[in-house]
Amino acid sequence: MRRSLRFAEILAVGSELLTPFRTDTNSLYLTARLNELGLDVRGKSVVADDRAAVAAAVRAALARADVVVTTGGLGPTDDDVTREAVADVAGVAFEEDPALLASIEARFARRGIRMPSINARQAQVPTGAVALPNPNGTAPGLWCEMGGGVLIALPGPPRELKPMFEAHVLPRLRDLCAGAVLRRRTVKTTGRSESHVEEVAQPIYTTWLQSDPVISTTILAAPGQVELHLSAQGDDAARLDRALDAAVQRLHAALGPAAFSVDGRTLAEVVGGLLQERQFVLAAAESCTAGLLLGALTEVAGSSAWIAGGVVAYANDVKVQALDVPVELIAAHGAVSEPVAQAMAEGVRRQLKTDLGVGITGIAGPTGGTESKPVGTVALAVSGPGVRSVVRMVRFPGDRAMVRQMAVQAALDLIRRVLTDADYN
Amino acid sequence: MRRSLRFAEILAVGSELLTPFRTDTNSLYLTARLNELGLDVRGKSVVADDRAAVAAAVRAALARADVVVTTGGLGPTDDDVTREAVADVAGVAFEEDPALLASIEARFARRGIRMPSINARQAQVPTGAVALPNPNGTAPGLWCEMGGGVLIALPGPPRELKPMFEAHVLPRLRDLCAGAVLRRRTVKTTGRSESHVEEVAQPIYTTWLQSDPVISTTILAAPGQVELHLSAQGDDAARLDRALDAAVQRLHAALGPAAFSVDGRTLAEVVGGLLQERQFVLAAAESCTAGLLLGALTEVAGSSAWIAGGVVAYANDVKVQALDVPVELIAAHGAVSEPVAQAMAEGVRRQLKTDLGVGITGIAGPTGGTESKPVGTVALAVSGPGVRSVVRMVRFPGDRAMVRQMAVQAALDLIRRVLTDADYN
Repeated sequence: MRRSLRFAEILAVGSELLTPFRTDTNSLYLTARLNELGLDVRGKSVVADDRAAVAAAVRAALARADVVVTTGGLGPTDDDVTREAVADVAGVAFEEDPALLASIEARFARRGIRMPSINARQAQVPTGAVALPNPNGTAPGLWCEMGGGVLIALPGPPRELKPMFEAHVLPRLRDLCAGAVLRRRTVKTTGRSESHVEEVAQPIYTTWLQSDPVISTTILAAPGQVELHLSAQGDDAARLDRALDAAVQRLHAALGPAAFSVDGRTLAEVVGGLLQERQFVLAAAESCTAGLLLGALTEVAGSSAWIAGGVVAYANDVKVQALDVPVELIAAHGAVSEPVAQAMAEGVRRQLKTDLGVGITGIAGPTGGTESKPVGTVALAVSGPGVRSVVRMVRFPGDRAMVRQMAVQAALDLIRRVLTDADYN
Repeated sequence: MRRSLRFAEILAVGSELLTPFRTDTNSLYLTARLNELGLDVRGKSVVADDRAAVAAAVRAALARADVVVTTGGLGPTDDDVTREAVADVAGVAFEEDPALLASIEARFARRGIRMPSINARQAQVPTGAVALPNPNGTAPGLWCEMGGGVLIALPGPPRELKPMFEAHVLPRLRDLCAGAVLRRRTVKTTGRSESHVEEVAQPIYTTWLQSDPVISTTILAAPGQVELHLSAQGDDAARLDRALDAAVQRLHAALGPAAFSVDGRTLAEVVGGLLQERQFVLAAAESCTAGLLLGALTEVAGSSAWIAGGVVAYANDVKVQALDVPVELIAAHGAVSEPVAQAMAEGVRRQLKTDLGVGITGIAGPTGGTESKPVGTVALAVSGPGVRSVVRMVRFPGDRAMVRQMAVQAALDLIRRVLTDADYN
């Protein structure tokens, strides 16, 4: 049976999301997935861990939307009330699902822990609802069709929510959503400000608002990265894909080497791909970023093929002793300088016997800045016998965390440019 | 006239906040400020730029809360509909405010621009509402008392919203909120699952629901960390503080060394404080976490006083050459083993001449697991002449990112326990 599902709402359950400290981000992922099915997200809400409040919010959302997705409140503790609120809205009682109970017990057993008695609650399923398995946690999800709409209750932790949505919600929703699709592409750039990317891209993407299919473009900036998000909606997926691929190509050509990814890959993944291609192994010497560059590179599964490791030389002594940076070089130029970054890159490459070495030294703040080298000053170097070695001095805006994040991004980009031999300017 | 205002809701207006790319963050700032006045934020929503939808959402929020704050939708363009929705809810017409019109015109004149005619809309004020001046933009805010509640409409850009709230909303709300305050505390724990923390804490905090003042408790889990958030509301701030401090002490005593922070500090900050106190300098040798432990420790400003640096020994060669881990030790026990973690900790401590050394070696996945050492197996060691050296083998659940994050958290906790000489079990 196919119904015409058009509108969706997302409801995050959790008093912690009503404090000044946390914000709901699951809805961004869910919106993207719902959009792909042609569902328009018309509203999002956050409600406290209060059974009556959750039930009222679910009822109101179901009155406005065809699909309502809740996140959170499925845990074993007293303040987890989503399961009860769903039963209240459906007007049904609970049934214990013995298979579910066994799987929760087995989960604890695998970790060598006795199941706390409160977890037995999680095997209670509202009559008529379908329990959705959770491979990454104890909280099962719920799929519950009522009054012509669908209510989907998912756990709050992203690593539980996402695989559950992909495996158990997406196929069920796809069956109900007839034909309409929304397709997206992303062009990721680095080393350019948001206004510079906008200046290049805007004359191009505005013409797409009159094209058939219409392509919408959104520009999105994060520290060290500006992304262009393209989307198009219609019935013919292949036609949308062709139009979007052509659009991406035009933007890529206009943006030049600043565009590093059109296939969703992160900058670290792109760098990893280039290292793998050249069969290069890299080592890094990090001062102000103190391991965050290697941390970012090794986020990529399989990175042991092209990362040997490195030295975190936070103290100057370590730069001298572990990396053979001449003490006179530091005395003459300062620890944050192009010659020291270069010596760090060469030192770590020699010590770890790798093809490429990277050096990062900078002032992340809040203290340590001087008039000539204020907080945010970072020197970066990439060195190796098979490449054109480079060294750069840059100045990043922002606080300690932002400076460190931008330095990691700039170092990744420098490696990328060295490996693709692209101009750096 | 003083009324008893207790509950607030926040409503973000803007279709862009219903895409996969943007999330509302104004509500975090607003929640903090409203909490300080003793207002409990009970709900947050996002609605599209649709006059009827905004009006319906405002009406529903006013039925639940004493104070409703909207953000966004006050601009001059067609899709800015908050002003109209406010008038719809109040059931009033508009009046032009000549002073407001003059100030908007003057704003354009100062920039040498003629005011676009569409901006004249922004001088239209719903009858009975007070227009709130906007020094950083053209969109005035609105203060509108109705049906015993207050509706406050603020512009969306943070640099317009915040100064307007401070200058024009806070004093008005303070007059209406008779002295009530909301105070918070957080108890952070590590090394225990959410259910285990709940088992210990629940019998304690449920009694506080009947106490005077009432203390509400929320439990919040992140990888390697479970937090208890306490809050109490009332007129007498000193009395609330005394009650909360006593409550925190009881939880701390019950949870024992698993509780690492009651003052908001992160685990890395707590570890840094302990190192500073003992005047110890630390070095780390990281394999599977590849720099993330040092990255986390150096997030703390001033960490150069107690972090020398370290070695990222991703490849076994680096473990042998840079850390002097005997190659026979790796052959006999495997790279992920207690003896190798210990040798890494001792090696990095010797190499970098520090007081303490930490070693981490593990299998983050997705590949590399074996039957006896599946993905998630991590060996951790802390070693130094002035402390009781320890080594542990643990198994974390989850994917690559989660295993690495939990390994960092466990390593931080191991350092903390060694420095406080707390039992580790």
